Amino acid sequence: MEIKTRTSDPATIALCPVAEHEGIATVFDRHQMQQPQCGFGSLGLCCRICWKGPCRVDPFGDGPQYGICGATKDTIVARNLIRMMAAGAAGHSEHGRHIALAMQRVGKGELPDYQIRDPKKLAAVAKRLAIDVEGRTTREIAYDVATKTLEDYQNQDSKKPCHWLNASLPAKRLSLLSKLGVLPHNIDATVAQIMSRTHIGCDADPTNLVLGGIRGALSDFDGMVLATELSDAMFGTPTPVVTQANIGVIKKQAVNIAVNGHNPLLSEVICDVAGEMQSIARDAGASEGINIVGICCTGNEVMMRHGIPLATNYLSQEMAIFTGALDAMVVDVQCIMPSLSPISECYHTEFITTADENKIPGARHVSFHEEHARETARKIVQYAIDAYGRRDATRIKIPDIKQTAVVGFSTEAVMDALAALNPDDPLAPLVENIANGNILGVALFAGCNTTRVKQDDSFQTIAKILARNNVLMLATGCGAGAFAKNGLMNSQATESWAGDSLKAVLTAVGVAAGLEGPLPLVLHMGSCVDNSRAVMLATALAEKLNVDLSDLPLVASAPEAMSEKAIAIASWSVALGLPTHLGVVPHVTGSQQVTDLITTQAKDLFGGYFLVETDPALAAEKLVAVMKEKRHALGI
Amino acid sequence: MEIKTRTSDPATIALCPVAEHEGIATVFDRHQMQQPQCGFGSLGLCCRICWKGPCRVDPFGDGPQYGICGATKDTIVARNLIRMMAAGAAGHSEHGRHIALAMQRVGKGELPDYQIRDPKKLAAVAKRLAIDVEGRTTREIAYDVATKTLEDYQNQDSKKPCHWLNASLPAKRLSLLSKLGVLPHNIDATVAQIMSRTHIGCDADPTNLVLGGIRGALSDFDGMVLATELSDAMFGTPTPVVTQANIGVIKKQAVNIAVNGHNPLLSEVICDVAGEMQSIARDAGASEGINIVGICCTGNEVMMRHGIPLATNYLSQEMAIFTGALDAMVVDVQCIMPSLSPISECYHTEFITTADENKIPGARHVSFHEEHARETARKIVQYAIDAYGRRDATRIKIPDIKQTAVVGFSTEAVMDALAALNPDDPLAPLVENIANGNILGVALFAGCNTTRVKQDDSFQTIAKILARNNVLMLATGCGAGAFAKNGLMNSQATESWAGDSLKAVLTAVGVAAGLEGPLPLVLHMGSCVDNSRAVMLATALAEKLNVDLSDLPLVASAPEAMSEKAIAIASWSVALGLPTHLGVVPHVTGSQQVTDLITTQAKDLFGGYFLVETDPALAAEKLVAVMKEKRHALGI
Repeated sequence: MEIKTRTSDPATIALCPVAEHEGIATVFDRHQMQQPQCGFGSLGLCCRICWKGPCRVDPFGDGPQYGICGATKDTIVARNLIRMMAAGAAGHSEHGRHIALAMQRVGKGELPDYQIRDPKKLAAVAKRLAIDVEGRTTREIAYDVATKTLEDYQNQDSKKPCHWLNASLPAKRLSLLSKLGVLPHNIDATVAQIMSRTHIGCDADPTNLVLGGIRGALSDFDGMVLATELSDAMFGTPTPVVTQANIGVIKKQAVNIAVNGHNPLLSEVICDVAGEMQSIARDAGASEGINIVGICCTGNEVMMRHGIPLATNYLSQEMAIFTGALDAMVVDVQCIMPSLSPISECYHTEFITTADENKIPGARHVSFHEEHARETARKIVQYAIDAYGRRDATRIKIPDIKQTAVVGFSTEAVMDALAALNPDDPLAPLVENIANGNILGVALFAGCNTTRVKQDDSFQTIAKILARNNVLMLATGCGAGAFAKNGLMNSQATESWAGDSLKAVLTAVGVAAGLEGPLPLVLHMGSCVDNSRAVMLATALAEKLNVDLSDLPLVASAPEAMSEKAIAIASWSVALGLPTHLGVVPHVTGSQQVTDLITTQAKDLFGGYFLVETDPALAAEKLVAVMKEKRHALGI
Repeated sequence: MEIKTRTSDPATIALCPVAEHEGIATVFDRHQMQQPQCGFGSLGLCCRICWKGPCRVDPFGDGPQYGICGATKDTIVARNLIRMMAAGAAGHSEHGRHIALAMQRVGKGELPDYQIRDPKKLAAVAKRLAIDVEGRTTREIAYDVATKTLEDYQNQDSKKPCHWLNASLPAKRLSLLSKLGVLPHNIDATVAQIMSRTHIGCDADPTNLVLGGIRGALSDFDGMVLATELSDAMFGTPTPVVTQANIGVIKKQAVNIAVNGHNPLLSEVICDVAGEMQSIARDAGASEGINIVGICCTGNEVMMRHGIPLATNYLSQEMAIFTGALDAMVVDVQCIMPSLSPISECYHTEFITTADENKIPGARHVSFHEEHARETARKIVQYAIDAYGRRDATRIKIPDIKQTAVVGFSTEAVMDALAALNPDDPLAPLVENIANGNILGVALFAGCNTTRVKQDDSFQTIAKILARNNVLMLATGCGAGAFAKNGLMNSQATESWAGDSLKAVLTAVGVAAGLEGPLPLVLHMGSCVDNSRAVMLATALAEKLNVDLSDLPLVASAPEAMSEKAIAIASWSVALGLPTHLGVVPHVTGSQQVTDLITTQAKDLFGGYFLVETDPALAAEKLVAVMKEKRHALGI
């Protein structure tokens, strides 16, 4: 395997030979070993929903065309697809619930290790939920916000949509989704309903199934938006901060702790106590003290709130250990490779799991609960400091590869930056520049890494083409990681790649906002739950113009979509009216009906649709064409 | 294919040649066409949880041993297994929620087409939930019972277990399950949590995963018990009734309507309006009026409450159409073969779906909502009457195959029967007869049909051996259907098959209860949600003796377990302490760790465990040995 064909990440290219030398398989090796992958599964034609099976439909028409129960290829593909949406919604909304429950306890005064660090955001959130703030304490407001948020997991009246959907989408979009019967009333109930309707002998109608899945995807959105908004209130709303990204942020002379996963409840406290424990680390011989680095979406969370450098994104998480200088990898939930456990055993690295529902064999499990957050975090940091003493100096190989990244563009931060141009009407400059064509449109990059394409490559290829076409770009999750690591989230990138009119806009805003240069080429909006931030911005734009989201020249792109969460995100993106690019072929092509539904008919229903294109340059061209088409329809 | 090797149901043996003659494939044909089935899937070694995959682990150790993310065979098998438990829990609990929401509306006076037909049961249920009944109207109580029941879908305090678990299990068992951390606090949240923890990069620990799955299975139990208890209050608690079972219950001179699926909210109203519409059917030429017959668990529901005859169980549901005399098949949710649609198109049969979340292409969809229940039911019955006029007399072939079945042994009915022997202490005769060895133990037969074994055969083989060994037998779901169709649910079967001491007990109880003969060899406890009835009886027994469920000589057997609901049921059966026989090899054998966990280590944790044995005669011997072992431990 030539690693350069599998990733465009220079740090990964530098470290894979180390893994090879050590005789340790990486995710890229395991991908090779899995070839050829099952064609039935890849087409969505394998059904394992009951123990009469497994069944599979022959895509060539020679073999069986029905499962044993009589399910058709269309039914099987649709069921498999929407179970993925349900799992994605469950993932994001468990994260959101965790935050909401913690905030409720903060409101009750039960969690001294946590505070409401952004009372202004809390008040704004409260207002969106129609919660009174006048003359009330922060705690009282926090309790009410959390309690009302939890109703989105409790409401049993199917006619009342989730609060956070009502609070976050334009009226026109809510009305359309309501008419289509896809507005969820309860996140958990919707997940359960999808599992139930895909049970053997239940829903067999592909269109009905996919619409049910979309309801789940919108539950995913609900769980995401509440996770983001409550996290901001508890941990602070991100503002622009300059930091660095890629594996070179690991320091030889520091106790290096990577926080990997998703939920800020753990990582925030690790950051807090690490600050207090610097002297202990120095006493242990680490002259640079403790160096927290981020991986995957936890990385995005702490990067955008605290400027913590980002070590890497999903696909290269194993590489951090191969530096030989990672003293602890601390993980919570989601997108954590189980392979980290055996790999860390080959090194001195402490691999620490913290969530009781997410254990990994071989890891040290330190059960994390908010009521003992600081105490537990200190224990974890101490494990890292102890591990530092067990380093093998001969195995330390930290590629000096890192890029400057300006991150932290929350919706509020974008609005603040725009307000520097027009304090009375911050959206006006954006509207004006879209209307006059200085900005062609807005693209949100989201989603994962996958071994099915060259890591990080499509993100960059597409972004550079969109930049030349003056598209304003936002990014989250591992997409954001790809841009940060590869130097596309700084002013220099804007200078290098932006088209003239985009460059002028980004410069005007950046300078007015006091950034001493243009805004970055791609604005970092946060972790994967923070995709909701982009929707907040789009909703503000749509409401201002009294149009629907689908009317605006907005697109989304997930060139490396892999996880069920990404499938849920991409699906609500379609449901919100956005043409949504996938750079991998989704596992649905075994059914022409489902394929047509999500790529073509969806346009009539939602305005949004899946645009599948594995060639990144072609994808960029198609996205540009879509934005032009939207502009044409708007008469601009 | 020789059909006699695939089923022991004489009606199916009689009708399959009709299907063959018509050139229509049946479930048995589709099973043949799917051979050979995928070995990876059958072993649980195929992972389709993200779009990097599908991945598969080579069971022989030559090929890949890890998924691309690094998941081991143990992780993959455990994740696949517990997602099935979650789906099963979702299925049963959606059913339960549907009933609870309807009861809440009955309480509010919003559903004139429904009543609380059994206020005595409602009061008993209210007392179990600590709801005051004194001086309150039935509606008020119903509202409160439903509202408190719905809290089992809403509670966000993970330290407070679901109400219905608390109300239904012995104190010792609750204590053990609490210690093991597997008591769910919220059904929906537990389903979502399982989906979340099995997302890519989350829980990778097989034991942790399986225990998480068990929490889901106990949510399944919670959903089932609340479904059963509230259904009894709304539609009446079953009492023994004599009826008939198997395809011969379809009448040539009647408008035949099969109700198929699970939820009594639809079928009860169909039964009501059919009674009122008899003259319309007669006017249309059907001299015997309207003949409602049941299939699958809807069949069990209406059979045990109204004596409606049972046409057949899951695997032979297609056969009803091949009689050429079925005018309508009306379905709601779960275990409905999509093949019914194309098959009904070859006949005059109206195939009618009713649940908006469970549509089937080609079916006539009549959207059923409780607020217009009677109106909708009348419309459905009218479609059947209209279809009667389109019959092709030359294609009518109704095998004259049916058996007498005495059904309706709810927990209350069993207690009433026992009270005939000892009104002051109804359980005393049962305890006494178990203690003195007249009854060796109690076996619950549950679960589905599957094409992987000869339909209905194992149920009968095992039951006949257990009967000779004086085991008291209960049955639900398609297991109950197998016994009813094959003549094992009547007094004659007791005369023919019961061991002497069992026969004496069943005769004494039957005669005392005024049944003019022994109780049936196998007591019909209802549909698959009604497995909770057996637990109610076992709990009463355990509480009386101050022991745990696992101490009693109780076993469960699901010789044809197939659906995810059955997997959930079998799993909670294990968690409740019952040795639980599976007659099919579960899709877990790709992981020795998971296999050992559920078949061996589970015994240490729960008392219960999976006993996998595909040979029915051997299975029966093993179950007898288990009961003897339990008796020995009890010193009886």
